[in-house]
Order: sequence, then C-alpha cells, then structure tokens
Amino acid sequence: PISSTPRTFVMLSKISPSSAARGIRNFNTKIFEKKTVSLADRTETIVVGGRDKFHLLPQAFEGVKQIGVLGWSSQGPAQAMNLRDSLEGTGIKVSVGLREGSASMEKAAAAGFSRDDGTLGEMYDVASKSDMTLLLISDAAQANTYPKLFQHLKKGSTLGLSHGFLLGILNNRGEKFPDGVDAVAVCPKGMGPSVRRLYEQGKSVNGAGINCSFAVEQNATGMAVERALGWGVGIGAPFIFETTMRDEYVSDIFGERSVLLGAVHGIVEFLFRHFVANGASKEDAFKRTAESITGPITQMVSHNGLLSVYDSFEGAEKREFEVAYSAAYHPLMEVLMEIYDDVKSGRELDSVIDAVSRHGQYPMTTIDDTQTWRVGETVRAARTSAQRPVCPTTAGVYLACMQAQADLLIANGHSYSEVANESIIEAVDSLNPYVDFRGIAYMIDNCSIVARLGARKWAPRFDYLLMQQAGPKLEKGEVDEGLITAFKENKLHQIMSVCAALRPSVDISPVAGQHGVRD
Amino acid sequence: PISSTPRTFVMLSKISPSSAARGIRNFNTKIFEKKTVSLADRTETIVVGGRDKFHLLPQAFEGVKQIGVLGWSSQGPAQAMNLRDSLEGTGIKVSVGLREGSASMEKAAAAGFSRDDGTLGEMYDVASKSDMTLLLISDAAQANTYPKLFQHLKKGSTLGLSHGFLLGILNNRGEKFPDGVDAVAVCPKGMGPSVRRLYEQGKSVNGAGINCSFAVEQNATGMAVERALGWGVGIGAPFIFETTMRDEYVSDIFGERSVLLGAVHGIVEFLFRHFVANGASKEDAFKRTAESITGPITQMVSHNGLLSVYDSFEGAEKREFEVAYSAAYHPLMEVLMEIYDDVKSGRELDSVIDAVSRHGQYPMTTIDDTQTWRVGETVRAARTSAQRPVCPTTAGVYLACMQAQADLLIANGHSYSEVANESIIEAVDSLNPYVDFRGIAYMIDNCSIVARLGARKWAPRFDYLLMQQAGPKLEKGEVDEGLITAFKENKLHQIMSVCAALRPSVDISPVAGQHGVRD
Repeated sequence: PISSTPRTFVMLSKISPSSAARGIRNFNTKIFEKKTVSLADRTETIVVGGRDKFHLLPQAFEGVKQIGVLGWSSQGPAQAMNLRDSLEGTGIKVSVGLREGSASMEKAAAAGFSRDDGTLGEMYDVASKSDMTLLLISDAAQANTYPKLFQHLKKGSTLGLSHGFLLGILNNRGEKFPDGVDAVAVCPKGMGPSVRRLYEQGKSVNGAGINCSFAVEQNATGMAVERALGWGVGIGAPFIFETTMRDEYVSDIFGERSVLLGAVHGIVEFLFRHFVANGASKEDAFKRTAESITGPITQMVSHNGLLSVYDSFEGAEKREFEVAYSAAYHPLMEVLMEIYDDVKSGRELDSVIDAVSRHGQYPMTTIDDTQTWRVGETVRAARTSAQRPVCPTTAGVYLACMQAQADLLIANGHSYSEVANESIIEAVDSLNPYVDFRGIAYMIDNCSIVARLGARKWAPRFDYLLMQQAGPKLEKGEVDEGLITAFKENKLHQIMSVCAALRPSVDISPVAGQHGVRD
Repeated sequence: PISSTPRTFVMLSKISPSSAARGIRNFNTKIFEKKTVSLADRTETIVVGGRDKFHLLPQAFEGVKQIGVLGWSSQGPAQAMNLRDSLEGTGIKVSVGLREGSASMEKAAAAGFSRDDGTLGEMYDVASKSDMTLLLISDAAQANTYPKLFQHLKKGSTLGLSHGFLLGILNNRGEKFPDGVDAVAVCPKGMGPSVRRLYEQGKSVNGAGINCSFAVEQNATGMAVERALGWGVGIGAPFIFETTMRDEYVSDIFGERSVLLGAVHGIVEFLFRHFVANGASKEDAFKRTAESITGPITQMVSHNGLLSVYDSFEGAEKREFEVAYSAAYHPLMEVLMEIYDDVKSGRELDSVIDAVSRHGQYPMTTIDDTQTWRVGETVRAARTSAQRPVCPTTAGVYLACMQAQADLLIANGHSYSEVANESIIEAVDSLNPYVDFRGIAYMIDNCSIVARLGARKWAPRFDYLLMQQAGPKLEKGEVDEGLITAFKENKLHQIMSVCAALRPSVDISPVAGQHGVRD
C-alpha cells in the first residue's frame, strides 16, 4: 500500500560493492616508452603512441602470427584496417572473423579482407587460429556468445576487448575469463569511424588519433601488457593510459548514459520546452539548444577547454551562464549519482539483459518522430555557413553536466586520464561532431543496443529533474557563487589542457555512409 | 565506446528468477467461512469479512493477549484504532509501539493510547510483550531496524506485515525471518486513512472497508492462517484473498510505480503538453487530464467498471477514445514490463536502498513547482460544483494503462483478486479520491519514500514513451481494432464486477488533516 509518511530520510547502509577493491596498477613495459604526466595533484603514467612507434610493433607482438578481429559493426572495421595498415610488411596477419552468413562478409571483402588469403572467415574458426583475438562484436552479442568463444581460444593466446562490458556480465554471473589466456582491453575513447578517420589523418599529422585506455585483467602469457600496448599503438592511439576493466566498463556505461547521450538528450528536451514556454520560436529554441551544444560549444571545449566557453561571455550573458550553471549542477549530479550506483552495482547490466530479452515482444522503437526532433530536421536542413549561436543558458547547463560528471568520477577514484576522456574528450572530439552531422535523435536511434537502452532510460530522468528543480531556479535568476568559483578554479581545466597537449587538435569531419554509421 | 550497430535484436536468456517457483497455496481455516468465487476462467477462494464476523475474533486470536502495532504513519493509526474497536470487550489489548522520543507519541496519545494502561510504549519493548506484532513502520525504516526487532520477538508469536517489502530485502540479502515465529502479511489495498475511514463507514454500512490480501510465509505456531484472517477481519476488510508475500510485494511495488502514481504522473504530463501543443489553454489542458482522471473517470470505474467509461462515449468521442487507447496501450506496456522485471529481479529494491543512502547528500526534493502543477493549483482552487469533463483521449490512455497492467499481472501468474485490486480497485476506491482532493503532485511529494522514489523514477519514462510512440499515433488518428476488441471482451470486466459485488460501493470523502495525510 502507498502510505503517507513524514518527509524524513532514513540512512541505510549501502550494499553496492566497495570501490576500495579497485585501484590503478602501475604497468611495466620493456618496449614502449612510459611518460609521466602531471595532472593537477597527481602524476599518471601513460604511453605516447604515434607512427614513429610502429617499428616497435613486431616486438610487442612477439609470438603473434595472426590477430583475429571478430565483428564488423563499429570498432571492427576501424581496428582491423588500422592494424593491417600498421602491421604492413611485418608478416603478422590480420584476419576478420564474422558469423557464417553475415551480411558484413561482403563489406569486409570490399575492404580487402579475403577468404582466399585467410584474412576473412567464420568467427570461431578465426579465433581458434589466432594468437590474439579481438572481440569487437556488440555488447549484447558478447553476452550471448562468450561461452562458445572461450572454448575456441588457443592456450597462450590473448583475448582482447574494446570495452569491459563482458567482465561486468561475468561478474554478475559469478564466472571468469578462461584459464591460460590473457584478458586485456584497449578501449578507444571514440566510435569506430572516428578511430579510422583520425588514423587516416595521422598519415599527415603524426599523433592524430583517438586516445585509448588499456587494462590487463589476466596475464597468462606474461606478455599481456606489451600486446595490449602494441594493439593501442597499432590502431593509432596518440595517448594510452592504464585503467582496470572494471573502472573502464563502469565509466563507459555510465558515460554513454550521461553526458555522451542520455544527458544531452534530456537537457535538450528540457531546454527546448523552456525556451518555447518563454516565447522563443521552436526553430530558435532548437538553435539555442541542440545546435548550440553539438556545434560551437563542442568546438570551443575541444579547442580551448571548458573555461573558454565561460570566458567568451560578458555582462548579462555571463550572468545568464552562471544562473544556468547554478540551477543545473545539483539536479544533474543527482541523476548522475543514481546512474553511477546502478552501473557499479551491476543492476544496469542486468537490466540491459532483461531489456534485450523483451525485444522479441517489443522491438526497440525510434525517438525521432517527436516535435523537438522534427523541428530539428527543418533547422538542420536550413543550416547556413553563418556563425551558429552559443546560448549562455544552454552552455551553463551543458558545462554543469560535464563538470558534475567529472567531479563524480574523481570522487569514485577513477584516474584523471579516464575522467577527462570519458567526461569531455570523447564527447567533444569524437561523438558530438557526428551528432552534429546526423542529429541527436539519429545518433540515439543508431548507436549500440546498450547505449540506446541507456539513453532512453536516463534522458527522461535528466529532463524531469531539470524541469522540477532547475526550471524554477532559472526563473528566480540566482547565482550560486560557491559553485561558480569551484567551476572556475577546478583542477579539471589543468587536466584537460595536459590531455589536449598530448594530441593534435584535429577536427573530425564526418562523412556520410562511413563504416558503422548508417545512411 | 559507443558504436553504431545495425538494428538487430539479440535474444539473451533471461536471468531473473523463474515465476514458476511461485503459486497460490489454498489455505485452511476452521474459524472463518471460505467462499469460492468464479472469476472469469478461474475460481478463487476468499474470506468474506464484515462486522457480523467480529464475534469470531477471540477464537482467531486464541493465545494472543496483546497485539503490538509498531508505527504511526499511515497504516499504524488506522489498524491500531480499527483493531481496538473490533476487539472491544474481548480482553485482547492493542498496544502501539513507537521510537522513544517519536513525535508521534503525542498523536497516539490523542487517539487514546496510553502509557498508563500499557497501550503505548517504546517499540522494541512493546514487541517483546506482544503475542502478535504488526510492523507498520515505513519500508525504508523496516530495512534498517529488522535485525534488532527480530531479536525482540517472542517465540511462538506472530510477526505481521502489511506489505511484503521486508521479504524482498531479506531475499536480496540471503536472510530469513527468525525461527519460531510466524511471518504473515495482511495487506490493505488502500492507504491507512482509507482503511480507517471505510471502517468507520462500516458502522452504518456493513461490509464497507478496504479489501486485503493475506499471505503466510512462515507458520511456526500452526495458527498463522487464523491469526492473519482475524487481523484482516478485525481491521474491517470486506473481502480477503490469499497471495504469497513475494507476489504481494512484487505487485505492490510494481503497482505504485505504475497506475497508482508513476504512470498517472507521466500520463498527465504528456497529455497536458499534448493538449497545449494542440491549442488548448493550460487550464483546459489540466481539466482534460488530471481533473478528468481523478474525478469523473475514477468515479465511473469505481461504480460501474472500465467499460462504463467506454460506453459513455458516442460517435466522434468514442472514436477519440479508441484512437487514444490504441496509441497508448503498447508504449505503456513496454514501460510496465520493464518495471515488472526490475521489481521481480530485486533490482528495484536494491536501487531504493542506494537511493535512500544518497539522501544524506541530496535529500528528496518536491515535484510541485513546475508549470503543470502550478496551473493545476489554480484550476483546483477554482473548482465549482459543475460537472467535470470526461476527456475521451485521457480516458483512452488511462484505461489502456489499467488494462495493460492487468494483462501483465495475469500473464505473470498473479491471482485475479490481486490483479483487480492492484490495477483498479486500489486506484479508484482508495488512492484517487485522495489524489483528487490533494492533487497529484502533493500525493507524489507526500507518500512513502519507496513510492515517491518509484514515481519519480518511472513517471518520466511513461511520459517519454508516450511522447515518442503514442504522440505520433494520436496525430494519425488510427484505431487498432484488435486492441479495442480485446479490451471490450476482456475477462477483467467480469472479474471486476464480481470483486465489486463483494463490497458496497462506498465513496471515500477525504477529510483534510486526517491521519497520515499532512495538511
């Protein structure tokens, strides 16, 4: 029964797993050069990639005659092609493995992989012949196929993931990676098409590429670290930092539910209604929200950091930014904390499994037929080369989300490199340029199943919390000076500037029809 | 990383617990009369209560000298006062137990419970002196205090719950009720104030009261069934049906997240925007949504069932209802299935525990300061005695929600009695009359912590799914004839009419300041 009780808050002990069990290991490599970087109050150790390191790959892959790349959705084509290019002339074969009868066989063949020379085949067969097997099929498919795949891995081979998701599934089920093989992850902080695109740009601009994290969960061969680093360098990462598989999947699953997709969706829906309710035309409201975020705000953050957006405003506009930031930070943080707890506890992954099992009855539908996105299509179609507006209210809310997300990840012990990449760099350097090209609704309707489910689940929560809490505060127009000072003096800005210095600021020019993004 | 994958749906095996493990036990009673009722294609066994059964209570409570009622929020005062009235002259003492220093001590004293005659005291002390202890403190507080309470229960006593929540917590933690005591539940299908109010009305109209389910989870004394039934009869239930504690908490936690609170909130927000976007004034939009649901639609369903609403429309209005029902049923079902899975798996309760633990940092805020509810305050304040409108679109969406919820519970093996009560009777006979009096936002801001968290979590999901899927269909104006036929011919109507015949159709007249509903 629903009972009416006084508004008192009972504190219960948290039962989610302790974060104290986690922690960054300090890796050793005899092949690549480690570099220590000062990030605010910490130092972190990274490996710098680049084409001038490609000559080290044969050493890193010692004992590896074939790298099997399983899957051809997003990361699969990008990583298979990048590795093939980087390993040209070394004698190490890159072979693509797909489901027998997969429609992607033709696409892989068109990209030059061939059954005749053994660089294309059935996935379990490719796995059983590979010394390193990169499992790049969708998360949902991984959850379904891993028991069979594990049986096909060679003893002494290395299983590679580009995402810790499978570890989350194994944890929830009380299972482990198979004995006698390495389990490593190299996780590009961007979609597959960006990984390929920036690699190609890297041919003229050394160091252009998508940053990666790497993790060694199981080191059976003793060579897991070198192989993982070789993999990261081989796909073109300019900058590789260490994490754990657990930290990686928690921050990744969390990130796509928040600032990368879910929060952006919810923020735009809330602000769109807010501006319309306050007299803006629908077209203008869309320009001030979605168009502002994925266009100029993204570019300013990418090129010069969060503070450059704030510093670009003066007078009344600066105050408008501050009001919006003050109104939005706490409600956003409230949702972010809930997402983080749901991911950390394993509930979010469990719910994904259940959701996918319901798709037989209710397949996933699209979100793009609502007023906001229909207006958006019109606005986007009529874009001109003229300067697009930077709305101070939208900037305040969006940057509050980035800052809150970074604050939360730091409080939960993630490495600063991971925080900067998951909260900001992946958004402004990899995802948002595509979103700007395709539209937010399109992106949410066409990303991975796990990400789509997360964006649908959490966007409405961001929207409602903002509507209920930030809306009234926007009306009142008050500034929380403490929050603004904390933003201006935040260590995140120094962290970001160091991370930015580690790669050239290459703009991504999305191309229609590129691998993984459907027309 | 977020990857773009083709829109294929991978079926994963469900890992949530099997529902086959559940099942209704057929109870035996030597004291009360069992009655078999035909509910559509099943028969179910119930006990009919009423004042003419009160003389059986001493037999049912054989060996019970004191009943301790712990808590004074919603169910506590109602059940303590009803039991005291029903047991007058039997020598069985009803004693209220509260936290030492609780502000409710005064309220209980004002209701005639007294330290001097041993009918009021500290909760653990009262429990240790009681032969039957009814734990009616909030769910959140139960999760915190049960280990200590269990130590204070007398061997051979009966622990009574009005909600299976605690079993859910014990299940999640791998624990059990203590040995040597009964564990039973009697669960009124309405808030405490309704339980008291209808009991008082029952003095003049025999059989007026709130229906209850009952469950026996552990029968250490061999008398658990009789004590539970005595308890149900004693608090005035006109009609008591059997369930399991697990089915009860699943359907209850599910129900408050859906048609009772979460869905109503989301439906009203979506339709309010929909009507305003189509030219209605805000005031008119509020009248067509919230005012229509909690007023006339609720009364019609309560008096004459779901079909009476449908039958009240003709011509274009009937078509409008059918379009809305057709547009809304599937998106609502999609959210309902997700809620049900989350509750059944234990994830929802786990997330409640985590949410409460975050309240130290972010206390729960209110939802009532948004445009919808501000307009609502104005509209509600200006209510006249004139007939309130029944909007066909709103009726179509709301009834689709009730029907979808009933369909889902039936598919998951709940007893028809439970389905009718959780999906419809609790809404129209107990909750909505209060909601009509107080407003939806007030209700959501003042119900139990578990219900508040659930309403906040799921309302936005109902809203978004309706906006994304039902919105475009409302525009197209199509009718799904199959859905409408399934609605018209649904067995739910016969089930409802039998359940309705088992109690007088007493309207609840909410009174400000009554127990548990704050002013």
